Amino acid sequence: MIKLTCWVVLIIFFQVENVYCEKPNFIIVYADDFGYGDLQSYGHPTQEKGPIDVLADEGMRFTQWYAPDSLCTPSRAALLTGRLPIRIGMVGGDRVLWQTESGGLPKNETTIAEALKENGYRTGMVGKWHLGINEFSAGDGHHLPHHHGFDFVGALLPFTFHWLCDPNKFSDDNMSSKCFLYCNATMKEQPINPEMLTQRIAADAVQFVKDNHDNPFFLYMGMPQTHTAMICSTKFCNKSRRGIYGDNVNEMSWAVGEVVNVVKQLGIEENTLVMFISDHGPQLEECFHGGSPGPLKGGKASSWEGGIRVPSIAWWPGKIPPGSVNHHVLSTMDVFPTLLALAGENNVGKQGTFLDGIRVDQLFAENHENVKPPHKILFHYCSKQLFAVRLGRYKIHYYTQNVEAHNYSSNCVDGQPMGDMIANMDCSRATKQSPPIMFDLETDPGERFQLEASLHEDVLTEAQTLIDEHRKTLTPVPQQLGNWNDDLQPCCNPPHCKCNEYDDSKFQQQVYKNEL
Amino acid sequence: MIKLTCWVVLIIFFQVENVYCEKPNFIIVYADDFGYGDLQSYGHPTQEKGPIDVLADEGMRFTQWYAPDSLCTPSRAALLTGRLPIRIGMVGGDRVLWQTESGGLPKNETTIAEALKENGYRTGMVGKWHLGINEFSAGDGHHLPHHHGFDFVGALLPFTFHWLCDPNKFSDDNMSSKCFLYCNATMKEQPINPEMLTQRIAADAVQFVKDNHDNPFFLYMGMPQTHTAMICSTKFCNKSRRGIYGDNVNEMSWAVGEVVNVVKQLGIEENTLVMFISDHGPQLEECFHGGSPGPLKGGKASSWEGGIRVPSIAWWPGKIPPGSVNHHVLSTMDVFPTLLALAGENNVGKQGTFLDGIRVDQLFAENHENVKPPHKILFHYCSKQLFAVRLGRYKIHYYTQNVEAHNYSSNCVDGQPMGDMIANMDCSRATKQSPPIMFDLETDPGERFQLEASLHEDVLTEAQTLIDEHRKTLTPVPQQLGNWNDDLQPCCNPPHCKCNEYDDSKFQQQVYKNEL
Repeated sequence: MIKLTCWVVLIIFFQVENVYCEKPNFIIVYADDFGYGDLQSYGHPTQEKGPIDVLADEGMRFTQWYAPDSLCTPSRAALLTGRLPIRIGMVGGDRVLWQTESGGLPKNETTIAEALKENGYRTGMVGKWHLGINEFSAGDGHHLPHHHGFDFVGALLPFTFHWLCDPNKFSDDNMSSKCFLYCNATMKEQPINPEMLTQRIAADAVQFVKDNHDNPFFLYMGMPQTHTAMICSTKFCNKSRRGIYGDNVNEMSWAVGEVVNVVKQLGIEENTLVMFISDHGPQLEECFHGGSPGPLKGGKASSWEGGIRVPSIAWWPGKIPPGSVNHHVLSTMDVFPTLLALAGENNVGKQGTFLDGIRVDQLFAENHENVKPPHKILFHYCSKQLFAVRLGRYKIHYYTQNVEAHNYSSNCVDGQPMGDMIANMDCSRATKQSPPIMFDLETDPGERFQLEASLHEDVLTEAQTLIDEHRKTLTPVPQQLGNWNDDLQPCCNPPHCKCNEYDDSKFQQQVYKNEL
Repeated sequence: MIKLTCWVVLIIFFQVENVYCEKPNFIIVYADDFGYGDLQSYGHPTQEKGPIDVLADEGMRFTQWYAPDSLCTPSRAALLTGRLPIRIGMVGGDRVLWQTESGGLPKNETTIAEALKENGYRTGMVGKWHLGINEFSAGDGHHLPHHHGFDFVGALLPFTFHWLCDPNKFSDDNMSSKCFLYCNATMKEQPINPEMLTQRIAADAVQFVKDNHDNPFFLYMGMPQTHTAMICSTKFCNKSRRGIYGDNVNEMSWAVGEVVNVVKQLGIEENTLVMFISDHGPQLEECFHGGSPGPLKGGKASSWEGGIRVPSIAWWPGKIPPGSVNHHVLSTMDVFPTLLALAGENNVGKQGTFLDGIRVDQLFAENHENVKPPHKILFHYCSKQLFAVRLGRYKIHYYTQNVEAHNYSSNCVDGQPMGDMIANMDCSRATKQSPPIMFDLETDPGERFQLEASLHEDVLTEAQTLIDEHRKTLTPVPQQLGNWNDDLQPCCNPPHCKCNEYDDSKFQQQVYKNEL
């Protein structure tokens, strides 16, 4: 009798392990300020179809995928840790890190890269970081990605592809302070040559995949697009019928296609999960230089759907059914526990570290519609203040930001960006809603038709109970944002802060395989 | 030498004719008040995928397809004649025909059905007509479809699927005046049994295709969805995660799927063009009972993009490349000359009849992006007044209607329809724009960022020249709308106006083959 039981246990154990007996590779592409409505596959009327849309054709498109925050720094911190920004101190200041701040992603936080490394993965990143640069002195690079579990760091934007990086509009002197490109921990170019930026990122991503396809690997690609510097290389400029924004989308899509192509060429596509996700919504105040929230209200920096609901696509030939559409309410914070589970590590977050993300790879399957919604509630913060929650089909707003308060038609003359592009970043300018206002997002994703809160008291009460429970899980941590120090300004050769030392020789052969 | 020339001419002639040597069948499905953003394939976040989306997967989806008008009656008249409503007198009154009006589609206008009949087609229609009923006396049916070239008329809604047709909200007495179902020229049911409506339309459409698949045939399906009567049959109610509107979309999509299925079963799919088009944009004031314009501004009755840009899908296996997306600026009026050309008749509109539509079947091919845009300009009228034009990438508004003037959040309590649902129907309430206001629709489809008109004087001048030319082509015709006469009220058994004589026996076997 005892012997029989042992055999049964052994068989079950074998089957569970066998599902992912070969550890899959992971490529996470994180776009910048890219709106819910910016892709043809998400309904944009004039955007050309590109390799990212092909990922949707061949994989799964999510329609209710939420960013952890409506701004870059906190969203990226939450992607890499699976935890809300408030939980890890990525709040305060201007809600994003500037290049002269001393804060960054806390080193005691475990990133996806660190956790996967422990599970036998080779880890790499290219592109935008925006989670801190220097801590004590210009050039110490204490917050850079190689301190957070990345074995390989290629072309690196430690800060962001800032609007100052446009050589058609600004002088070198203007650009030098905010536009600089590193390779791993060393600055190579200041200001950035925008013509080469995407090609460098794509080339390093391709090289990392080639160099590591025999290992399980994790690649994090932070795309510079489609942030406010609307700059494209010669190959892409003036090609899109959508204009300069469309050119930028096409260039980003090309880069993603380059990486997917090498995955296919190496024959590892059935063991490689690729995800394309935006960090948050588009910056509407940028007019023609900003993206589209599609049918959603509001954009970047706000807690309206346009600020936090993002395009998200998962591609894994043979595992994820092609052309599938997933309506589950999910979060970018789910990436961490999902990747770790797929890598065979189920204990993540179980040793005292509170994870806000949930393992959701069971939703990649054909029958995902029948799976119970994984999240009971999602919390949408503006820095330290809870602004809204998603509970089942309902969205409840406790604070709201202005939407189109500036009246684009009279301020956005001829589609040019407006002066005040960051009004919504200041949480204190929001309006307190008491009683809270409610929408039914399943029937009204555009938040047009406010529900009568008194008819839904049960929902409000349930939300309050869950918020109270949630608050008990928050513990005080040091605030990372808002500690400015001009001495920390990255500068390649003080005091000039100008250099042009990027070595492009090694990748010139390998780009432009995937013609748009 | 002469002999050789003859041979050459003969060969060319043979090749041109051979392209469509077998006359193709045509099925035109016209949806009602169905918005640009209402289908999953057009980006709706929660609408389920249905057979209409499968047509897009297997065929071509248009992203800049324009309704001839933003209301039902003029849009339908223009579809059937290829001519602007102002050219054929379908203007005035309330911009739509009420059931007691004496006007209708003028008999001297040639419809697609009449023109195709002359070219050897069998012609049929089912569903919504809305182009006139009686002329001199109740029951004369002078304006009904069998007077306009349709050999077969099945289940027929001569008027519309009015909001009064909801038995959960209104009594029989309320409904009887506006909710009545004919079979061909005879009223069979007053008020309508909404449970059976879509099934009857689908069944008659299927039967017509079965009966005529050896002929070339033309079938016009006027779907009752998704007009303001949000009623679904038991099989579809309370099934969509999007709510009642989603249920209605799914029921319509099922009906379309039934017809496409029979085309496939008969093996005639490679000789059958199916088009799905909406008559105009969604009625936003209906709140949860109205559709979604997706990323567009405004809705039904207005000349903003949300009122006039509509979903349009063309399906023709072997002829139209699957999964293709077409960005050309096209019009529902193009259907008439396109179908006639495909039927081998190229002389339509060349004998003194001015056609506003243009043959566009050359855009159904793989290389459509390289084809020159067929329309120099599109005219958007509100009844007799020109409100806006589309010229190249630009939209120029001469008059604009209010958008969300009613502030949904405070008026649309708990998503219930508002009292004043027809404010935009009155053209005289619009605002004159002088100078006109402009948008670049290729970069800004949502009409968010107004261009500085003074920077685009050349565009305004070109538009004015084309408008002047256009006006010269308009000749005075009798106005068909606005002649009310209560004696014309359709009534099956005066004075009671109540009957229930629809014969469902013959189709009960053939429906529900295509499970959703």
